[in-house]
Amino acid sequence: MQPTARTSLRRSKERAATDRQALYDVLLDGMFCHLGVVVDGDPLVLPTAYGVDLERGEDGTLYLHGSVAARSMVAAPQQTVCATVTHADGLVLARSAFHHSVNYRSAVIFGVPRLVTDPDEKLHGLNRIVDHLVPGRSLSVRPPNRKELAKTSVLALSLTEASVKTRSGAAGDDEEDLGLPYWTGIIPLHVVAGEPENNPDCDLLVPAHVRTRANLLGAPS
Amino acid sequence: MQPTARTSLRRSKERAATDRQALYDVLLDGMFCHLGVVVDGDPLVLPTAYGVDLERGEDGTLYLHGSVAARSMVAAPQQTVCATVTHADGLVLARSAFHHSVNYRSAVIFGVPRLVTDPDEKLHGLNRIVDHLVPGRSLSVRPPNRKELAKTSVLALSLTEASVKTRSGAAGDDEEDLGLPYWTGIIPLHVVAGEPENNPDCDLLVPAHVRTRANLLGAPS
Repeated sequence: MQPTARTSLRRSKERAATDRQALYDVLLDGMFCHLGVVVDGDPLVLPTAYGVDLERGEDGTLYLHGSVAARSMVAAPQQTVCATVTHADGLVLARSAFHHSVNYRSAVIFGVPRLVTDPDEKLHGLNRIVDHLVPGRSLSVRPPNRKELAKTSVLALSLTEASVKTRSGAAGDDEEDLGLPYWTGIIPLHVVAGEPENNPDCDLLVPAHVRTRANLLGAPS
Repeated sequence: MQPTARTSLRRSKERAATDRQALYDVLLDGMFCHLGVVVDGDPLVLPTAYGVDLERGEDGTLYLHGSVAARSMVAAPQQTVCATVTHADGLVLARSAFHHSVNYRSAVIFGVPRLVTDPDEKLHGLNRIVDHLVPGRSLSVRPPNRKELAKTSVLALSLTEASVKTRSGAAGDDEEDLGLPYWTGIIPLHVVAGEPENNPDCDLLVPAHVRTRANLLGAPS
C-alpha cells in the first residue's frame, strides 16, 4: 500500500491503519462497495459487488463487473475511480451531540481500472466476485457462456493506492461533560443473514456452501 | 422528483421507481450514505451520516455534516455531489453464474449542496442527523455550543434530482437452465442492532429512546 497525497489521511491520523492486513480484512469482510466515477465532470456513486484476488498483481487486485451498457463501466476504464467498502459497526452515543460518532471500518481504493480482456482472467474475475458473496458458489452453477461473457465488462483495480480508516470503542466526551445526566454508550450494528429461501421452482435441499455462508453471517453472539 | 438525463435510468427501467415515496422510504430506512465528490478531477467516495427534512425546500432536504477541515466538505459546496443510500436486502443465487444478483434498494441524489450558514437551520440540520440515527436523541444530549458549531460544516442537499432503483424477489434464470441441478434461491440480509452497551463511565439505565432504536433494528422475524 502506497500512501499518496489523498490516501495519507489529512485528519484523524490515529484512525488511519496503513498496513495491508487491515485493508484485506475490510475487503474480505465486506460484500459490496460504492464505486465512484466522474461522468461529465460530476460524481456518480453506485453500489456494486466485488471480488478480491490478493495474489494477482503486485499489491492484489479488486475485480468489478457490470453490463457493458452501464454508465459506470463505460466511464471507468478511462479514468481514476474510487471504490469504497464500509462496515458500520455501531452507533456511538455521547453525552454531547458533538461527540456522537459511528464505529466503522472503511477502505478507500483509488486507481485507473484495467479492462480485463483475457478470457481466462475475465472468467477468473467473475468467479472471484460470485465466490466473494458465497464462497464455493462458482463450482455449483452453470458457468457463463460466450454470449454472457460478451455482455459483461470486468474491471481489475490494483490495491496499490488504498487507505483504511476505522473507529472503535466507547464514546469520548469532553472532561467537563462527564457529569452530565445523559446516557452514553454504543448501539452495536451487524449485518446478518436470514434463513436461505428456495426459489419457488426449486425443491433441492439448501447446499452446504449456501448454509455455511448464511451461518457465517448468522445472528450476532 | 425531476428525472434528468442521469436520473432517468438508462437500463433496467423496470427497476426504476420514480415516485417520491420510494425515495423517502429508502432515505428514512437508511443510516448512512456514500457521498461522492470530485477532488482534483478524480472521484472521492466517503461514508457519512445524514439527516432528512421532507418539509424543508420544495422537494425535501438531505442534511450532511462534517469537520470544516474535511476534504469532502471543503470540496462539496462549490460543485455537484452524489449521495447514495443503499440497502442490501439479499443475495440472489441463480442456477447460472450470469443471473446471480442482489436484492437491494438504492437512492441516488445529485445536486450542488448549499452551505448552511443560518445558525437556526444549522442546529436544525445537526439535530436531524442525530435524530435520524436515534430518534429523539437530540433531546437527551448537551446541544452543540458555539465553538463546536464553528468547527462543523452543515450542507443542505435538495432532494429534487434523485432516483431510486430496487430489485426484489426470486432469482430469474433463462428458460433453458431451469432443469439444471443447482440450488437457486435467496440469502436474506438484514442490518440488526445488538444490545446497547453502556460506556464504562456511565451507570445510567439505557433510556427509552435508545432501547426503542435498538428494538426497531432488532433481529429479523
